[in-house]
Amino acid sequence: MRMVDVIDQKRNGGVLSDEQLQFFVDGVVDGSLPDYQISALLMAIYFQGMTDREQTQLTMKMMHSGERLDLSKIPGIKVDKHSTGGVGDKTSLPLAAMVAALGIPVPMISGRGLGHTGGTLDKLEAIPGFQVELSEQDFIKQVAEEKLAIVGATRDVAPADKNIYALRDVTDTVDSIPLIASSIMSKKLASGTDALVIDVKTGAGAFMKTEDSAVKLAKALVAIGKQAGLKCEAVISDMNQPLGSKIGNTLEIEETLDLLKGKGPKDLLELVLELGSRMVVMGQQAASLAEARAKLEQTIADGSALARFKAMIKAQHGDPNVVDDYSLMPHAKYQIEYPAQKGGVIAKLTADEIGMASMLMGGGRQKADDQLDYAVGIELHKKIGDSVQKGESIMTIWSNREDIDDVKELLDQAVAIKESAQQPTLIHETIE
Amino acid sequence: MRMVDVIDQKRNGGVLSDEQLQFFVDGVVDGSLPDYQISALLMAIYFQGMTDREQTQLTMKMMHSGERLDLSKIPGIKVDKHSTGGVGDKTSLPLAAMVAALGIPVPMISGRGLGHTGGTLDKLEAIPGFQVELSEQDFIKQVAEEKLAIVGATRDVAPADKNIYALRDVTDTVDSIPLIASSIMSKKLASGTDALVIDVKTGAGAFMKTEDSAVKLAKALVAIGKQAGLKCEAVISDMNQPLGSKIGNTLEIEETLDLLKGKGPKDLLELVLELGSRMVVMGQQAASLAEARAKLEQTIADGSALARFKAMIKAQHGDPNVVDDYSLMPHAKYQIEYPAQKGGVIAKLTADEIGMASMLMGGGRQKADDQLDYAVGIELHKKIGDSVQKGESIMTIWSNREDIDDVKELLDQAVAIKESAQQPTLIHETIE
Repeated sequence: MRMVDVIDQKRNGGVLSDEQLQFFVDGVVDGSLPDYQISALLMAIYFQGMTDREQTQLTMKMMHSGERLDLSKIPGIKVDKHSTGGVGDKTSLPLAAMVAALGIPVPMISGRGLGHTGGTLDKLEAIPGFQVELSEQDFIKQVAEEKLAIVGATRDVAPADKNIYALRDVTDTVDSIPLIASSIMSKKLASGTDALVIDVKTGAGAFMKTEDSAVKLAKALVAIGKQAGLKCEAVISDMNQPLGSKIGNTLEIEETLDLLKGKGPKDLLELVLELGSRMVVMGQQAASLAEARAKLEQTIADGSALARFKAMIKAQHGDPNVVDDYSLMPHAKYQIEYPAQKGGVIAKLTADEIGMASMLMGGGRQKADDQLDYAVGIELHKKIGDSVQKGESIMTIWSNREDIDDVKELLDQAVAIKESAQQPTLIHETIE
Repeated sequence: MRMVDVIDQKRNGGVLSDEQLQFFVDGVVDGSLPDYQISALLMAIYFQGMTDREQTQLTMKMMHSGERLDLSKIPGIKVDKHSTGGVGDKTSLPLAAMVAALGIPVPMISGRGLGHTGGTLDKLEAIPGFQVELSEQDFIKQVAEEKLAIVGATRDVAPADKNIYALRDVTDTVDSIPLIASSIMSKKLASGTDALVIDVKTGAGAFMKTEDSAVKLAKALVAIGKQAGLKCEAVISDMNQPLGSKIGNTLEIEETLDLLKGKGPKDLLELVLELGSRMVVMGQQAASLAEARAKLEQTIADGSALARFKAMIKAQHGDPNVVDDYSLMPHAKYQIEYPAQKGGVIAKLTADEIGMASMLMGGGRQKADDQLDYAVGIELHKKIGDSVQKGESIMTIWSNREDIDDVKELLDQAVAIKESAQQPTLIHETIE
């Protein structure tokens, strides 16, 4: 088989055969294919797309380029959640605890943040001592005993994806639905979960800017998951403004704990319940979404979800006292208010610019090896649709430097106040 | 400037700026751009195309990646001809001699053959002693004195093109109009000619299979040429069947000499006159195409074109006696007839399969470093539209091996005999 013929097949709008896909993935992993042919195929895929079956085959072959985690020793239906990434999106943290509190094993393999979006692992590391790197054995043991663990990849998962992703980044082939979907799902399938709920973000702060593209991606993800034998559903949720009120690592752990104590912001709780109820039904601990939602609300009311979260912190060597004493986590030196320049209604609160503002203070990474400042971030006092008086604080900026002109400049672009504005819809669509 | 932004601009259907094109060409030549980014851009160009101005700018920058030949010491308007390549296409040889016979300098820089198409330099080398590699100084001197020289590139012409072409071949980005056009024209502009007539072949034996694609390429070539300050015209000519009657290196020199002696095949003569009359008008030796055509015909009648060709052979160290004694060139050991399997009219005589058949015997190259057998080839006794009796020879196969089953198999695919068939149109269109 010649790679140039594989490229030609796709370039001319054809469907790649299983053998061609295997040849491609093998060549990516063993280094026998030159980068320039890989990138030419990626660009051809960008323009010509892939059929459902084709992208599932690509995903499976990428998944099999590494080993699949064997979670069979953990009893029950294992349920995981994936998000395409957003600003202030700490959903995974309370969600995992609430679902686990109902006895469903949640073996969550998460990532770090890059650019304006945060990463679940980074947030957990704001808790003193918290370890996100567990051995495979310890990971499985913890999920079996505590029902949840949130860790980084325990091994070289889907190595084909790592090689392909590195090229996509520099060849402008990142935003291709089949390439995004196969990248996400090859790793998720390799994680060994039985069921998966996917939160596809849409809006100004999301990778998928339009609802149309978010729906396309969600459908691709669910199609691949189902064809690969996974229980799989997706929710399209709004990322025009940040989720919840707090952005930043320590701040998002605080908001997580607040939510588990019944004091969480309304939008975050709503998304947690929407995603979580699907996980509970897939995990067969409820017969309907309504029943699942009621059970999840009960885990907050009876403190069982908070207990699960605390147990996880303890199991992963973090300081469990943070649950009751937030001051044990790093906090920023300066709290600077950002006042409204006029009275009215918040009409715009753009998530990516707010995420960037937090990143500029050290809350996120511009490059993969940047060090984080867990203490910094932004606390929103207003969301879109809220009224504001002239001079009233829209948000508090938590910073370790006094001069934050660059941050304020970004926030000026993020915020607009008008005479009226509607609250955006949080849940746009669900894909089952 | 970041290459990924250049790729993005083109991928999204934008027009690359002069600065972006310069950055690209510079990076290709100095090696600072990785191959995978170059190939990603090439594939994006394949899908998104280029504007006339954009492809002219790309061509100019590719041309300037090397040096431009300075032909200013040669008096008069220098005129050249380029063909996109065909089977049996020896047009350049008689054409150059006829135009030169009218006092117009023809500094022709030609190429070698690959695949089913032949190369002008290879054909000339069938003449014992003929040198196609001249120093720049000798090339200029010969054109000034003899009015014509046909040589290989005298220096590293348009190095950007060489690097880009090598990648296009293995990344399936060869058949992109702006990439083909910039490759051809960067080299032609670097050759220092003042005027250029381009023969774009179309049909089964041509790179451009459809007339539509041939017209598009011709328009791109002429647009670039004119924007770069060249006098430039193009002719779309037929390559469904081979041009003339002879295919093979020695055989095509014979046919060239026959034509210059007034005994050439009708289609070859017609194409030579069509292209040549445009060259003569551009070279200001005739006021109209009709006048130019008459003058060209006169160069055959009065023997002046044959004299020019003989003078060129002599100047380039070839044996001028071949003009009168074809046996001085290598001839094949076997002449094998290929008879018609039934009576009727030749309806198909596919150029690429006949070119391949000649290549299989050693008349052409499968790989760039293959050695040629100048002696072998195919002599057609019939063309499309000609009647044939059952058992009558359609062609003579000139071979140095007796077992030519592989060759005959290809010819069986090339030939079809039906009850009736029309002669194909030779000149499809002209682009001025």
